[in-house]
Amino acid sequence: MNSNTLRIAILGASGYTGAELVRLLACHPNAEIVLMTADRHAGQSYDRVFPHLGGLGLPDLVSIDDVEWPGLDVDVVFCGLPHGTTQEVIAGILHDTRRDIIDEMLLETTADLAAQTPGQPRVIDLSADFRLDDTETYATWYGHEHHAPHLQPEAVYGLTEYARDALPDARLVACPGCYPTSAILPLAPLLASEQIEAEDIIIDAKSGVTGAGRGEKLGSLFGEVAEGVHAYAIAKHRHGPEIEQELSRAAGMDVAVNFTPHLMPMNRGILATSYVRLANGASADDLHQCLAARYADEPFVRVLPMGEAPATRHVRGSNHCLIGVFADRLPGRAIVLSAIDNLVKGSSGQAVHNMNLMYGITETAGLEQQPLFP
Amino acid sequence: MNSNTLRIAILGASGYTGAELVRLLACHPNAEIVLMTADRHAGQSYDRVFPHLGGLGLPDLVSIDDVEWPGLDVDVVFCGLPHGTTQEVIAGILHDTRRDIIDEMLLETTADLAAQTPGQPRVIDLSADFRLDDTETYATWYGHEHHAPHLQPEAVYGLTEYARDALPDARLVACPGCYPTSAILPLAPLLASEQIEAEDIIIDAKSGVTGAGRGEKLGSLFGEVAEGVHAYAIAKHRHGPEIEQELSRAAGMDVAVNFTPHLMPMNRGILATSYVRLANGASADDLHQCLAARYADEPFVRVLPMGEAPATRHVRGSNHCLIGVFADRLPGRAIVLSAIDNLVKGSSGQAVHNMNLMYGITETAGLEQQPLFP
Amino acid sequence: MNSNTLRIAILGASGYTGAELVRLLACHPNAEIVLMTADRHAGQSYDRVFPHLGGLGLPDLVSIDDVEWPGLDVDVVFCGLPHGTTQEVIAGILHDTRRDIIDEMLLETTADLAAQTPGQPRVIDLSADFRLDDTETYATWYGHEHHAPHLQPEAVYGLTEYARDALPDARLVACPGCYPTSAILPLAPLLASEQIEAEDIIIDAKSGVTGAGRGEKLGSLFGEVAEGVHAYAIAKHRHGPEIEQELSRAAGMDVAVNFTPHLMPMNRGILATSYVRLANGASADDLHQCLAARYADEPFVRVLPMGEAPATRHVRGSNHCLIGVFADRLPGRAIVLSAIDNLVKGSSGQAVHNMNLMYGITETAGLEQQPLFP
Amino acid sequence: MNSNTLRIAILGASGYTGAELVRLLACHPNAEIVLMTADRHAGQSYDRVFPHLGGLGLPDLVSIDDVEWPGLDVDVVFCGLPHGTTQEVIAGILHDTRRDIIDEMLLETTADLAAQTPGQPRVIDLSADFRLDDTETYATWYGHEHHAPHLQPEAVYGLTEYARDALPDARLVACPGCYPTSAILPLAPLLASEQIEAEDIIIDAKSGVTGAGRGEKLGSLFGEVAEGVHAYAIAKHRHGPEIEQELSRAAGMDVAVNFTPHLMPMNRGILATSYVRLANGASADDLHQCLAARYADEPFVRVLPMGEAPATRHVRGSNHCLIGVFADRLPGRAIVLSAIDNLVKGSSGQAVHNMNLMYGITETAGLEQQPLFP
Repeated sequence: MNSNTLRIAILGASGYTGAELVRLLACHPNAEIVLMTADRHAGQSYDRVFPHLGGLGLPDLVSIDDVEWPGLDVDVVFCGLPHGTTQEVIAGILHDTRRDIIDEMLLETTADLAAQTPGQPRVIDLSADFRLDDTETYATWYGHEHHAPHLQPEAVYGLTEYARDALPDARLVACPGCYPTSAILPLAPLLASEQIEAEDIIIDAKSGVTGAGRGEKLGSLFGEVAEGVHAYAIAKHRHGPEIEQELSRAAGMDVAVNFTPHLMPMNRGILATSYVRLANGASADDLHQCLAARYADEPFVRVLPMGEAPATRHVRGSNHCLIGVFADRLPGRAIVLSAIDNLVKGSSGQAVHNMNLMYGITETAGLEQQPLFP
Repeated sequence: MNSNTLRIAILGASGYTGAELVRLLACHPNAEIVLMTADRHAGQSYDRVFPHLGGLGLPDLVSIDDVEWPGLDVDVVFCGLPHGTTQEVIAGILHDTRRDIIDEMLLETTADLAAQTPGQPRVIDLSADFRLDDTETYATWYGHEHHAPHLQPEAVYGLTEYARDALPDARLVACPGCYPTSAILPLAPLLASEQIEAEDIIIDAKSGVTGAGRGEKLGSLFGEVAEGVHAYAIAKHRHGPEIEQELSRAAGMDVAVNFTPHLMPMNRGILATSYVRLANGASADDLHQCLAARYADEPFVRVLPMGEAPATRHVRGSNHCLIGVFADRLPGRAIVLSAIDNLVKGSSGQAVHNMNLMYGITETAGLEQQPLFP
Repeated sequence: MNSNTLRIAILGASGYTGAELVRLLACHPNAEIVLMTADRHAGQSYDRVFPHLGGLGLPDLVSIDDVEWPGLDVDVVFCGLPHGTTQEVIAGILHDTRRDIIDEMLLETTADLAAQTPGQPRVIDLSADFRLDDTETYATWYGHEHHAPHLQPEAVYGLTEYARDALPDARLVACPGCYPTSAILPLAPLLASEQIEAEDIIIDAKSGVTGAGRGEKLGSLFGEVAEGVHAYAIAKHRHGPEIEQELSRAAGMDVAVNFTPHLMPMNRGILATSYVRLANGASADDLHQCLAARYADEPFVRVLPMGEAPATRHVRGSNHCLIGVFADRLPGRAIVLSAIDNLVKGSSGQAVHNMNLMYGITETAGLEQQPLFP
Repeated sequence: MNSNTLRIAILGASGYTGAELVRLLACHPNAEIVLMTADRHAGQSYDRVFPHLGGLGLPDLVSIDDVEWPGLDVDVVFCGLPHGTTQEVIAGILHDTRRDIIDEMLLETTADLAAQTPGQPRVIDLSADFRLDDTETYATWYGHEHHAPHLQPEAVYGLTEYARDALPDARLVACPGCYPTSAILPLAPLLASEQIEAEDIIIDAKSGVTGAGRGEKLGSLFGEVAEGVHAYAIAKHRHGPEIEQELSRAAGMDVAVNFTPHLMPMNRGILATSYVRLANGASADDLHQCLAARYADEPFVRVLPMGEAPATRHVRGSNHCLIGVFADRLPGRAIVLSAIDNLVKGSSGQAVHNMNLMYGITETAGLEQQPLFP
């Protein structure tokens, strides 16, 4: 192992997020993919599943059951398994490789451990399994008990721009949902600065189809998606409580939001149109300044000039988030829009960004690609 | 001329709304297209402009300047000219054929005239030129003085379900904009019954590209529209005041709305997602009942069962409007969704529906086609 | 039952072809749908499966196993079941209602029977199960023995323009595949008139996704279809032998073709680009004249002027077939293009057209709808 | 200037190929964009024209008329001007900076010059202006005299895999058209090895809309392209003679082809389906082996295993070309398919690849990005 190269495992590599990780890591100067699992495709070469990623010298797919974690020479595990199956898998990984060592080494924290065993695997989870602080809330929204509640307290919610301090010591990062990423980035600073009211936030979100994954579902068929638009999971989407958790954290008080997702006839992208009520005398210009200041040094968040509207096609394939602010015609209100690529900034790109910060690598490594337009 | 057959002129027949009129009228048992204008294509056969409408025996296109209105044997003029050019044209038509006759016949009202000269042309305008009651408001939003203010008072705002009484006597019908149609249908009854607050209405609307017409504009190119979504004309779209005018009429008080249009990567359809605050103790179920009752006898408006969301692809090509109602997770709020085909119910279909009512023809004639899905 | 109204059963009504039958028959002046089956959705109202077809007063879906054929008051059975399951079902229907009667009545042919029992069900099959004359060929291409070989001889291949004579007496019509419809219409007259060579025909066909049905298959997902194109089933698509059967019939000699289908990122439509070698001194103009003459009286086939290319979007939603002819730059060759809507002319529309001819109804009844563009 | 960094000018930067050059060069370790022209947008910052490329520190757009070529410190000029305007511009550039110097320095060839003046601009042209060897043929197909016939002899046809020897010394590279790139790559080796007949090649090509550029043309509107497919420029597309020129060169004899382009409802990608007749006893397997051997060492051309079909969506955004080979059912024939991204391998990516080889830079620099799927 080159001392500069992280050895990577990808669990659940046959989904769109898995393919996206491969796409990004293939250009990463410090990453080498050494293990990829996909139960239904175990034994196959990766280009049988994703022909666009042929010729990269990737390892063949294996079943997750065949992975021998102890002794496995892996630095980072990206976990792209379906919601609900992830907790036990991660508990297994982190137990086998860490929990016992902590006791043995008489360490107090996982950060101590991370410091002392830099070659041991750390987990970056792309599922929803460790996103909600409260395991009861998790059980309510996801329909089953949390299977690794002992790990939840150490999970770092990996919205990169808000996790910079925690990432270097994290051994378990829960990457945000795609919708929450798009909604929290523009709204959190405004709540933290008390420039918008906490109880009157409406988030009308529009997502491309890949947000639903690669499962063979009626609702994802071309015939059911192309040439039309509709709202779904109205008032009951699982990303609602996740958004509220993080906005509440930012606001320092309980925040409840309307969150209404819509399915777009497009592959990638989320546009979140947020309707907010101004507070404490703030104007739309103030909101714009607040956001511009908050993200001035962030490499992947760009606040557009006042009056410019972000478009999802302007971030496609990139880790960028574009934000726009508009005054409403209704007095005392403003409109805040944000655009991301759900598979990159909303998922795999943010995961790679987190990895870079966890390991002190150049922050933008693997993520320099500009958006693909048209 | 068969006494049951209306002789039709279409001004501006080379746009999408013109083609849509032709498509619908070709199946209409009581309509015969006798005149079609399109300046840039004057002299051409219609199937050179729209090959899908070949073989229908349509008249060739002529320049509007070459039309000799006096003596022209036409019953109905559909006017699909660009905004701003329409007022003078219509003033010319109605002057030549009517205004002089009124004086000559010592009639007092245009309704008297319509009653006495049933074979004279009546105008159904698909542009925005006669939609706003207040010609000052028109001038503000459309950037030029109103060119036929004397006609504005008699223009009937042709949202069919609200114009049934006025249509039979109308000689000038101003068909609503596509966005206003989608927004007013679900909201007007709720305001009229005081079940929602008048000052907190947010309309997040999503439209297909044909709403922008067939003009050769950068923003309408496939490359600029496909695989993405963005908001446009934020807080300054011309359909905003039109929506407010009609909602105010319904509410009996001033209503101001947030109206934010988004461009979808699809040809047809508008989905309007309206976020409303409940009033006077009403529940989302009450809203649903109100709407279901209001539209129970309307042939083209269908209120879906509680909990079902309308999709634009379920109205494509038809004159239908689907409406859905949902309780919000935020207490005291509800979400009302409506879907139409912008070129049919939002334009040409509604125009034909209006024609049928103006002439007492079977209401659904020419509009029986079911939605085309997928 | 109105004596002018046919009572219709649709087997397999939950697929796209089923929905398309409903769409067309809903506007048909002589048709009433009285029975619809869909096993997975038995017990549901039809608008649960296809919300765009609500409000039509359709019967609820039932399981095909629950249908009691004897005594059922049905005139026409449209069979839209999956390939392979159809033969036994139809054998059951025709047996119960006919075969026994034939013996009992000492009739010699099914035509005699049809003449004597005009109220008895006749079957219009949209599957591939009765398209191939030779049951051995069927077994080779479809992977199982033919389950109703005794019915095959009486099955009428329902390419309407070539089945006019046989349809009035048919009790079993096998509607052509979508690709064969698009390919045979332009090529059969040219082979019959010996204007093109029989051994050098290349058919490059492009189809919308609905040709693959509504099944939940990976290859039909939006993410796998949008924004791309690829060929599939190269040199082994089942529609190859069907095309060859009918072209051989037209040519009066064996014809073998290259048939290469491509999947388009669109819902509807087939464009068949056929590359042919001229024979017997014919020119491209001769081909054009031949086709124009052959289809001059056909209501749904339109041969475009020389030099105009058909587009699938110009037939969408209609039963039209557009044909264009071009001289090739290569001497002695020509290019013939044809466009249909795969769900209408390529399936359900042609089925309704056949029904009209079987019963002597106005030929275009239910099919007057013009194409929906855009 | 860093001695490893090439200073780049992009003429015609406001088109899709210009934006694509920027996208690729932004990730190129040895390139710095120092000049960009776009007459209609002169004076604007680049992100006004292409918001997805903001934040890159690019120079503002200038008018080409305002560029002072003498003394300009630029190494490479990418020329993305419209066909027809390019010849004079390039003649001006190369004259000012070279032709006079050649005389003054008593050099014999431009290669000598290139060797002696390594810092002087070299031109990589993306237009069609220097692709055809014969200026008469150019005049015939492009409708005007060639404006720089003296430069034509030194223009290197920049199909990278066939220009490796010539590129290091070239000062004028004519990058191939997108269609020719897709067609020549799979066919040239087969003609060179005499495995296919030269007189019976049919190329059915399918292209995304961006191939038509960013011009505001009716035929490029979303409404005219989405949900449909049609052939265009049948038997008269300008890329026909270009394909024939290069295939003739490969075959060592005159080759004439059928080339029929189709417009796809997608942004990017070309799929070329070529129907060929086998020669000299070759089999489809032989063709496959021939292609696999020819491109074994090429970084961007990948020959798929026998029986796998390439898809445009598997090369989107990348410089890759995928090739597949199939036996035809017709004896003695085969089908060869190739897929590229028209804006990358078919245009800007190939141009960058050429630049790398011209300057001896790492061949894949700036082009390591994997395809974006979905």
